[in-house]
Amino acid sequence: MSLAIISPGRNPKVWIDALTFHDPEIDIQVYPDITRPEEVQMALLWQHPPGYLDAFPNLKLISSLGAGVDHILSDPAIPRSVPIVRIVDEKLTWSMTNYVVMGVLNFHRQLPRYQADQKRKVWDMSNPEIPTRIGVMGVGALGGDVLDKLDYMGFPVFGFGFSEKEDFPYPYFSKDRLQEFLDEINVLVCLLPLTPDTEGILNLDLFKKCKPGTFLINVARGKHLVEEDLIPALEAGYIAGALLDVYRTEPLPTSHPFWEEKRIQLTPHIASVTNPQAAAPQIIDNFKRLKANQPLFNLVNRQRGY
Amino acid sequence: MSLAIISPGRNPKVWIDALTFHDPEIDIQVYPDITRPEEVQMALLWQHPPGYLDAFPNLKLISSLGAGVDHILSDPAIPRSVPIVRIVDEKLTWSMTNYVVMGVLNFHRQLPRYQADQKRKVWDMSNPEIPTRIGVMGVGALGGDVLDKLDYMGFPVFGFGFSEKEDFPYPYFSKDRLQEFLDEINVLVCLLPLTPDTEGILNLDLFKKCKPGTFLINVARGKHLVEEDLIPALEAGYIAGALLDVYRTEPLPTSHPFWEEKRIQLTPHIASVTNPQAAAPQIIDNFKRLKANQPLFNLVNRQRGY
Repeated sequence: MSLAIISPGRNPKVWIDALTFHDPEIDIQVYPDITRPEEVQMALLWQHPPGYLDAFPNLKLISSLGAGVDHILSDPAIPRSVPIVRIVDEKLTWSMTNYVVMGVLNFHRQLPRYQADQKRKVWDMSNPEIPTRIGVMGVGALGGDVLDKLDYMGFPVFGFGFSEKEDFPYPYFSKDRLQEFLDEINVLVCLLPLTPDTEGILNLDLFKKCKPGTFLINVARGKHLVEEDLIPALEAGYIAGALLDVYRTEPLPTSHPFWEEKRIQLTPHIASVTNPQAAAPQIIDNFKRLKANQPLFNLVNRQRGY
Repeated sequence: MSLAIISPGRNPKVWIDALTFHDPEIDIQVYPDITRPEEVQMALLWQHPPGYLDAFPNLKLISSLGAGVDHILSDPAIPRSVPIVRIVDEKLTWSMTNYVVMGVLNFHRQLPRYQADQKRKVWDMSNPEIPTRIGVMGVGALGGDVLDKLDYMGFPVFGFGFSEKEDFPYPYFSKDRLQEFLDEINVLVCLLPLTPDTEGILNLDLFKKCKPGTFLINVARGKHLVEEDLIPALEAGYIAGALLDVYRTEPLPTSHPFWEEKRIQLTPHIASVTNPQAAAPQIIDNFKRLKANQPLFNLVNRQRGY
């Protein structure tokens, strides 16, 4: 009974080290050198070749190597009967929140303005703060932590999501109330899962509904943003600026106009990177639960898509 | 019985408006047009001309127009018998903390690196976070709030101050344990009051004691930093970079080398600006307490200097 790591183009060594550190007995096979496919009962996936799982007749469990599972659900060949779990990593949440709070504070305290002033040796003390109200789209483990931290820091915060929520600790707007949500805020954070409902949600139509001068932070998936709509939204003033960590094509091609747009701050998909040392125990735990026929942790609901 | 505003070079109108909004009956005289000095019982000061208070024979109370009182205590002509109070403004604390957290996160998440990478169209995902441990010098209302917020965000935090503290909620180092304090941290935040003990405390000697690559944030007073020591400390690698909001001479002269130093981010003394609307009620309250012979709020201890 073995565990397969299928993560093309990424170095699997850190995962092998972390898994064997926590379970020295574990039998791991690594793509593309999987010689005993019939023994694979659990597959760890990150951007696997679609259809590749057909090679494993005895597959019983799939785990994403990150928080997102869109890269798994987008493969129609994934057998419906095999449960999917994902990584829920506190360190991942911590990093994501720090990144978003950084983006919020740099907008609130106008870092780009002071950077430009320093270059021109200008001393301008006027209006040092932009009143800031933050809306988070996607209020799961990641979005919820962002809301908690910004609320503790004393900022007004608002949540938006596709499902109805009762007893949510902050003002919450479900999908029919997008305009009301956008009316409340001037920083829009996207932390939605990528599903057919949410793909392309950050588009010119939505930007037109924002309060003029809204700042955008996308740390979810590149496909949430209709990339060709962002610069027109900046030109029109619907959006004042953006902090982006994810793109439709990664690495972002050097010909992409985002690189040279001063109102966009880019980072190379580093807001939150799954830490193999932190994630290995929950993978091993689910592997053992699979063998012992016990309930699995961090199970994905395919209907919802996360 | 009147209240004098003595704040040369700053527009007093916002203070007059705020004070009369909260107490329409209040009698205010404004420097330099103080025609009835014998009626002045309370003086609101911000960088008054030294010796100027000799003009008020019936002065009973002095209030700083900000959190700091170094600009008052540095005038030897201030009568010893007149109590001094200062502004304690939650909004001021809030702004200060947001500014410091912004500085900490931009260091932790390496914003300057990603800004440089964007300019060169470089996609580099390696090592996205610098492990960050924050030391705050000065653990009063401002420093304490910075510690609370960074602790809540999950960062290791450490305090340093000149007095002994018992039951402090975070690891705390008093003045004889400076080296131990600096050994713990790689972000050094100065929020000390300016006193003879603390003037020039941020100097080459201290920088040499820091862990190589420590990041400096000075949001207290310009005189805490020996300015000519900072660029040598950057060159030597004792300090990796700095975020500065205060300077020995403000506005910072355009000839000052800090403007062009890429490892230093400057802002024009805007980390935290006293808000007259928020501060007016406590000034009026102390003015009424003075008349009614009741205990004063936010009294300064001249011995300690804050």
